[in-house]
Amino acid sequence: MQFHLNGFRPGDPELHDAATPRRYNDRVDVLIVGSGPAGLTLAAQLAMFPEISTRLVEQKSGPMERGQADGISCRSMEMFNAFGFADRVMKEGYWVNETTFWRPDPAVPGKVIRNGRVDDVEEGLSEMPHMILNQARVHDMYLDAMAKSPTRLRPDYSRKLVDLIVDPDAADYPVTVTLERTDAGHEGEIETVRARYVVGCDGARSAVRKAIGLQLKGDSANKAWGVMDVLALTDFPDVRFKSLIQSSEHGSVMIIPREGGYLARLYIEMDKLGEDERVSQRNITLEDLVGRARRVLHPYKFEVRDVAWWSVYEIGQRLTDRFDDVPEAEIGTRTPRVFIAGDACHTHSPKAGQGMNVSMGDGFNLGWKLVTVLSGRAAPSLLQSYSAERRAVAQDLIDFDREWSRIISERPSQADGQNSDVPQFQRYFIEHGRYTAGMSVTYKPSDLIGSDRHQDLAKGFAIGTRLHSAPVIRLGDAKPVHLGHTISIDARWTLYAFAGANDRGAPDGPIAKLCAFLSEDARSPVLRFTPQGDDVDAVLDLRAVFQDSHRDLMLDRMPGLLLPRKGRFSLIDYEKIFCAPLKAGPDIYDQRGIDRAAGALVIVRPDQYVAHVLPLNAHDELADFFAGFLLPAR
Amino acid sequence: MQFHLNGFRPGDPELHDAATPRRYNDRVDVLIVGSGPAGLTLAAQLAMFPEISTRLVEQKSGPMERGQADGISCRSMEMFNAFGFADRVMKEGYWVNETTFWRPDPAVPGKVIRNGRVDDVEEGLSEMPHMILNQARVHDMYLDAMAKSPTRLRPDYSRKLVDLIVDPDAADYPVTVTLERTDAGHEGEIETVRARYVVGCDGARSAVRKAIGLQLKGDSANKAWGVMDVLALTDFPDVRFKSLIQSSEHGSVMIIPREGGYLARLYIEMDKLGEDERVSQRNITLEDLVGRARRVLHPYKFEVRDVAWWSVYEIGQRLTDRFDDVPEAEIGTRTPRVFIAGDACHTHSPKAGQGMNVSMGDGFNLGWKLVTVLSGRAAPSLLQSYSAERRAVAQDLIDFDREWSRIISERPSQADGQNSDVPQFQRYFIEHGRYTAGMSVTYKPSDLIGSDRHQDLAKGFAIGTRLHSAPVIRLGDAKPVHLGHTISIDARWTLYAFAGANDRGAPDGPIAKLCAFLSEDARSPVLRFTPQGDDVDAVLDLRAVFQDSHRDLMLDRMPGLLLPRKGRFSLIDYEKIFCAPLKAGPDIYDQRGIDRAAGALVIVRPDQYVAHVLPLNAHDELADFFAGFLLPAR
Repeated sequence: MQFHLNGFRPGDPELHDAATPRRYNDRVDVLIVGSGPAGLTLAAQLAMFPEISTRLVEQKSGPMERGQADGISCRSMEMFNAFGFADRVMKEGYWVNETTFWRPDPAVPGKVIRNGRVDDVEEGLSEMPHMILNQARVHDMYLDAMAKSPTRLRPDYSRKLVDLIVDPDAADYPVTVTLERTDAGHEGEIETVRARYVVGCDGARSAVRKAIGLQLKGDSANKAWGVMDVLALTDFPDVRFKSLIQSSEHGSVMIIPREGGYLARLYIEMDKLGEDERVSQRNITLEDLVGRARRVLHPYKFEVRDVAWWSVYEIGQRLTDRFDDVPEAEIGTRTPRVFIAGDACHTHSPKAGQGMNVSMGDGFNLGWKLVTVLSGRAAPSLLQSYSAERRAVAQDLIDFDREWSRIISERPSQADGQNSDVPQFQRYFIEHGRYTAGMSVTYKPSDLIGSDRHQDLAKGFAIGTRLHSAPVIRLGDAKPVHLGHTISIDARWTLYAFAGANDRGAPDGPIAKLCAFLSEDARSPVLRFTPQGDDVDAVLDLRAVFQDSHRDLMLDRMPGLLLPRKGRFSLIDYEKIFCAPLKAGPDIYDQRGIDRAAGALVIVRPDQYVAHVLPLNAHDELADFFAGFLLPAR
Repeated sequence: MQFHLNGFRPGDPELHDAATPRRYNDRVDVLIVGSGPAGLTLAAQLAMFPEISTRLVEQKSGPMERGQADGISCRSMEMFNAFGFADRVMKEGYWVNETTFWRPDPAVPGKVIRNGRVDDVEEGLSEMPHMILNQARVHDMYLDAMAKSPTRLRPDYSRKLVDLIVDPDAADYPVTVTLERTDAGHEGEIETVRARYVVGCDGARSAVRKAIGLQLKGDSANKAWGVMDVLALTDFPDVRFKSLIQSSEHGSVMIIPREGGYLARLYIEMDKLGEDERVSQRNITLEDLVGRARRVLHPYKFEVRDVAWWSVYEIGQRLTDRFDDVPEAEIGTRTPRVFIAGDACHTHSPKAGQGMNVSMGDGFNLGWKLVTVLSGRAAPSLLQSYSAERRAVAQDLIDFDREWSRIISERPSQADGQNSDVPQFQRYFIEHGRYTAGMSVTYKPSDLIGSDRHQDLAKGFAIGTRLHSAPVIRLGDAKPVHLGHTISIDARWTLYAFAGANDRGAPDGPIAKLCAFLSEDARSPVLRFTPQGDDVDAVLDLRAVFQDSHRDLMLDRMPGLLLPRKGRFSLIDYEKIFCAPLKAGPDIYDQRGIDRAAGALVIVRPDQYVAHVLPLNAHDELADFFAGFLLPAR
């Protein structure tokens, strides 16, 4: 966290100086409809940019107090780190350390026994844990980040979307949205907002989706599940572990321990539904849920003392054809003006703990693209990549969820697990650990994702996947840090330059030559794309990693671009240079398979995805990559 | 962090339910005078107890914005962890990772060169780092904790102490304090407060100290120092390291990098003062400070771009004879009613970074004792230990500071460091690392500190020193945690029971027998000292550590006292049992020298100091220890 650059300022450094407020209610750059995980992820990022006017409207009358979702994948935690509140979630939430598996006792089938336990996340998959925390608290953290942002953005509650019209021929603000207020004293008041872009994060019944003529398509639900958050007294020994329990006769239960040490969530398999039957027709009660859970957990006692929340739902995997308003025939020629994100474009069961995570991932994918386009750094065509990238992710999720839901509901066979001792249930869970941790997302080659021609230079930074961070030592102050944590929600790209053997920053070495190219060459993307007057790292943030210990490198011999002068006092930023050697264990070159002889240049997108891997001296390819989508600064 | 025990509650779990406000302005249990580090440490702890009425008054008109102190020792960070904001300080502050040493170049004496660099804190000394953060921000964190506490305690600003009278014969509220308001619209208004106890945390010019007839005694100052917080441009390569720089002719400078990446504090040795001369008589200016710093740092450039704060001061080490209002002759017979803490009873130079830390330590020593006495759990004689324990700490500090100040001001001799290559400067710094980290405090045997007869059972938990935490795995959910982090500011004592070999909690083993003694025996301190209706762990908190992996222990076979039923729903607390084995590295038995065959019982005070080490089966000694100062519950 850097602050005081432009002078000492008392108080909370996370509270930004408020930017001059803009009048924006009727004309905005971005109108976000819906303040769930997708909408808040997007809003909290856009709120950091006072030059972009953003409005967030929500149909409900205030912030959520009890959330449905609660699983936060390692990947989402990495994203939260960029937002600045991963630490808060780690402090407050439940850490999913292990998952246990229970199945019928082969000797006494009416009784469940523990059949296995595994690390919930494979060692080293992420520096972040898999967490469980009430969705409402995640919302609170986003809202807090917004309240502290330069724009002090707050949702406007009690706004119902009545109408949305896109005029593709309009010179500017092509989307006209009509909202109806529902708050006391203002009922029925109509507000008209003209927006450059509208993002529908308004859930499975999305009005924005309907307005742009898209439909959720997919399986109809045919299985009812119950979910309840309870304070219970039980002698089931794994009640503080994520546990998957399959009974022989009564279906399955999944226990998700919750934050605070006492609360637990149970997902309870209920009835199979008939064709076209809805779960609401079954009149399933809380007592039904508790009764079923007790039967599954037999012979353990399970007494519910207090119920915080409960619900029943049907599983259904559904998806829209695209995530924006551009018809198939016009892809590539027409600029998208309306986007949908989260449950508005993909719905699925909560069993894999993916819903909130994939929705937030939608918001994070779109946020930096909107910032980049609205600040004039890229043409609006950049925004086409949102639907392309995220629909593929949602399709994967739906395929996964369909399979996982089927396996969870399967009756354990006598044979299964008898021979191998590891039933299908557990095998599938382990095999798909990377998926549920959110690490399997791989964006395909595009303007924003390079080819894998030089992937061998940094095998552990797979192009198209999220940057897998690793620990390093910061040269300026010998602080042990995570390299990936240099990335914030500021919509900048990062160039991580890994020095080759014997390169200590000397003028004739590849790192210094790269710096010289970036500082001086007319083709340099830093020179071309950074607006005049901005700090040199305002658009592209160069960071270097060396193979030598911080005690063996000379700070005062480093290229100037690695000690950039910033802010109104032209002070030196000492946080650009890192050293690989740690006090113990393999270093980042070992951990991420970086070519020690040649080094590597790893280009990372603002949303933490690896965009490209290049040789350090591939100056032309570097220039070409950014010239592929950035516009020269005015 | 545990919450939701008595039902799900939306929102920030650190925001406690507000207790019914008490009218207390004119009669209070505790009146704290002064909202510096000592006063706030005390206030933030007392604020957690709604049954105790606390008032905090401050002469200044509002919270501090720019603080003098900035060093936060590892020990203070451990204490902050109990207050719940260590993580916040780690996020925001500067981490002191290494200290570098500079001295005149033997070849070119007008030029300084780096002569050494060392880890600032020895490996493994604490799980917490040595931090630097503006005192004002530390205040903010205490104020925030107070604002979220059940009592919502806030300082009353603009209150000047006019008079304080103790009537030792009064039946109750023996201290009468007269305050004068200085805030606009209320100037000159007089408030009279009657208090059971008054704590003067009102700084070096303490009015409370004067009122009880104590004086700061000690050396007069004879050396002027300057201090400044600056944004500077320099090519001195260690400006982001804590650096001690001795020049040949111009004295010494200490650089303390500050939070946020740009700010730095410099301590600058200025003139020697004449006998009885005060620094104010010298009219030292900011330009003098900057000029001196430049000469010391030669040949490096040092351009100050902005000054956040600066001051000049004289070194002086002074101390009062005692820290309460009980005259020497009446010690042991009269109950102290007025205490002084922090700078009110000890002043010294800021060079060793100890001032704020020792002051907070004063507050933390007194806090739990006041809670214990005011809640009727111990007789008021317990409070005598405050002066006894903390004056010895202050005396040590003053001795250390005198020596350290002398060494820092010494001109480097040509010989020094030439042969050994490590000058006295650096040697002293390394030798006293534990001291400056705050780890050398050792309370002497007393009612509160047992004898060392069984110290061999747990050599690494030295009786009288602070609990040196180590990592363990929590049985209930396999979470890796630090054992010492079970301690909060709730004024409870902790009994850490380390199981001997092959003890897995079975009924005939020492752990189960200890639990049986504590649950059933008439001599049990748990039974004797826990008020009826309170949770079983409300006064004494038993935690057990086993040598087996969490996968080899059976939660459902553990003694009931380790799975206590709590709160209005009688829910099980699953956070009392820990396992030693880690995924890698030596376990807590190895790290802390615990007898693997016999195990050990380690008794820890509410302020995190080890009070006693006993064999697990020393039930009588355990009972006797607590009977030595606790009163049977009513």
